[in-house]
Amino acid sequence: MKSVFPYDSVELSPNGREVVILDQTQLPLQEKFLHLDTAEQVFYSITRLKVRGAPAIGIAAAFGLAMCMNRYKTRSLLAFEKEFLRVKHYLYISRPTAVNLMWALDRMERCFYATKQGLESADEKHAIEVLRNALTAEARAIKAEDVKMCEAISGFGFSLLHPGCGILTHCNAGHLAVSKFGTALGPIYLAQQQGYSPRVYCDETRPLLQGSRLTAYELTKAGIDTTLICDNMAATLMAQKKIDFVFVGCDRVAANGDVANKIGTHGVAIVAKYFKVPLYVFAPTSTIDLDCVSGSEIIIEERPAFEVTDMYYSKPMAPKGVRVYNPAFDVTPASLISGIVTEKGILKPREIRNIAKLK
Amino acid sequence: MKSVFPYDSVELSPNGREVVILDQTQLPLQEKFLHLDTAEQVFYSITRLKVRGAPAIGIAAAFGLAMCMNRYKTRSLLAFEKEFLRVKHYLYISRPTAVNLMWALDRMERCFYATKQGLESADEKHAIEVLRNALTAEARAIKAEDVKMCEAISGFGFSLLHPGCGILTHCNAGHLAVSKFGTALGPIYLAQQQGYSPRVYCDETRPLLQGSRLTAYELTKAGIDTTLICDNMAATLMAQKKIDFVFVGCDRVAANGDVANKIGTHGVAIVAKYFKVPLYVFAPTSTIDLDCVSGSEIIIEERPAFEVTDMYYSKPMAPKGVRVYNPAFDVTPASLISGIVTEKGILKPREIRNIAKLK
Repeated sequence: MKSVFPYDSVELSPNGREVVILDQTQLPLQEKFLHLDTAEQVFYSITRLKVRGAPAIGIAAAFGLAMCMNRYKTRSLLAFEKEFLRVKHYLYISRPTAVNLMWALDRMERCFYATKQGLESADEKHAIEVLRNALTAEARAIKAEDVKMCEAISGFGFSLLHPGCGILTHCNAGHLAVSKFGTALGPIYLAQQQGYSPRVYCDETRPLLQGSRLTAYELTKAGIDTTLICDNMAATLMAQKKIDFVFVGCDRVAANGDVANKIGTHGVAIVAKYFKVPLYVFAPTSTIDLDCVSGSEIIIEERPAFEVTDMYYSKPMAPKGVRVYNPAFDVTPASLISGIVTEKGILKPREIRNIAKLK
Repeated sequence: MKSVFPYDSVELSPNGREVVILDQTQLPLQEKFLHLDTAEQVFYSITRLKVRGAPAIGIAAAFGLAMCMNRYKTRSLLAFEKEFLRVKHYLYISRPTAVNLMWALDRMERCFYATKQGLESADEKHAIEVLRNALTAEARAIKAEDVKMCEAISGFGFSLLHPGCGILTHCNAGHLAVSKFGTALGPIYLAQQQGYSPRVYCDETRPLLQGSRLTAYELTKAGIDTTLICDNMAATLMAQKKIDFVFVGCDRVAANGDVANKIGTHGVAIVAKYFKVPLYVFAPTSTIDLDCVSGSEIIIEERPAFEVTDMYYSKPMAPKGVRVYNPAFDVTPASLISGIVTEKGILKPREIRNIAKLK
């Protein structure tokens, strides 16, 4: 699978001394790349959503940690270890809800100690060099595996499609959110490469407009037939039989197949069910949480009123002080989901419990 | 039924020489009243949505025509008649889709000729004076009848409610859109006066934000427990059992009970059906179009991309040149509607055909 983009949203420079990210807060107006060379810059880029999307955040954090260790000057192995743990714990709290972030940083720590164990008799300078190389390689491996995951998930998703089909998507689970191809958008890029000419409709995805700012941007950039709509227009398109599939990403899958994803997914799923349009959730197996029995256990983050009443606007668009309910996610029950597409294959929601075998 | 507002959105000054409107484009930041004293100002206020909402537009046009004739200086009855027809036809095309506009201006014309017929032997100066008074009275009658319609429709809607109930509404069918109380919001004002303490959730209603700019404004102004949400959050609220009713206005009702209303209504109706939440459409009998057999005959106005990608924002929020689908209305099928609330009573959608008897 070849990439349709000339760059990835998160890269580590060849010498391992810079993390290069596409600043997503400047899209779609400006393609601005940031060259990050301090832990603080990486932290800030994550907290301010300059890099976003669960897999992309994990990769950025791993790259950030490797970059910091490549730059840290010391001849003392103890000082090197202390600095490693300081940076790791610092980046760990940059976005507390991003599971991939913790997962990637914990994996870097396991790599650190596994490597260090084999170096007990080496001199300190040599040991530090070996650790630097191991951490850099581990961070690159995290990204490489994510690319493979994307390719596999894209292939399974692609198997569902037919030439000329219409796909509705919500939020952004594409190139920008992941390492390369995306999850929910991956099959669309593959379909385009295979000459299927897919037609894609993007929900703008209020209030943060990931659909119009990011999904519409990356799809049009890739030359895909893209139409932007407001979130409340999906029913009209489905009534006109313009939509054959709904493809969405996901933040967490519960053991019973309920799915937490960007606010609005639940409504789209109900409308899709009404019009008998199949809805597929794209979920790397890393997002499946078997400890979570059902969606009702998932705590939904509520975000500030400002995002609905003021953000992006040239002046406030609601009366001052009005109460706003602004949940960032919702839970779509398993009964509304046709299939959960993972890098291991497409599962029925009720088959999620068996994922332990696949993992 | 007493008004909860110190003013109406459209008034004729006591001397009949000014149309006073609340500029809805400045809401919710500013309560700016415009004193209109030329046909051009009235025309511009309608085209630029300074006055909006089908009934309010009709009233503004009738007031505008009366105001112009009260100001027009002539001693010639023929010149007076010519000017009347010129202004009438000029205002007639200010918003071609607004049925109430044509209806109100045609009614003013019938009043003009009925009055003139009784004045054939009168001297011209006296005839002009009588015509001025008749036109002013007719325009005031149009508004007074609209107020009565609102009171009746509010009473029927109120009969559905119970204390502490939660109501979801979409777009703006309130005080600002109509003469005084509103249609879909009328029962809410009545419920508040009766101590029911209704809880109201307003869809922000993309792309023109009538929900956040206007509905949230007028409800909070009236002291009603109001929560603003994005259009894609309704399913979450219904899943939490916070919504007992959905109340919406309407632009046209077909003979089979299908309803055209603001884009997004269809999606809300599907979600409400899924959660078994009753949806009521508030439709003055003037919006029922028995010549329209079903909703599929209603042509849906498509509006410019600009409204979705740029309007209200401080900078564009979508990639330049992206295709946008922006229908202004959608059609909700009769099967999703629990009842159509008119000023004559609450009808099942299938009973709409019998409305000829009521009208």
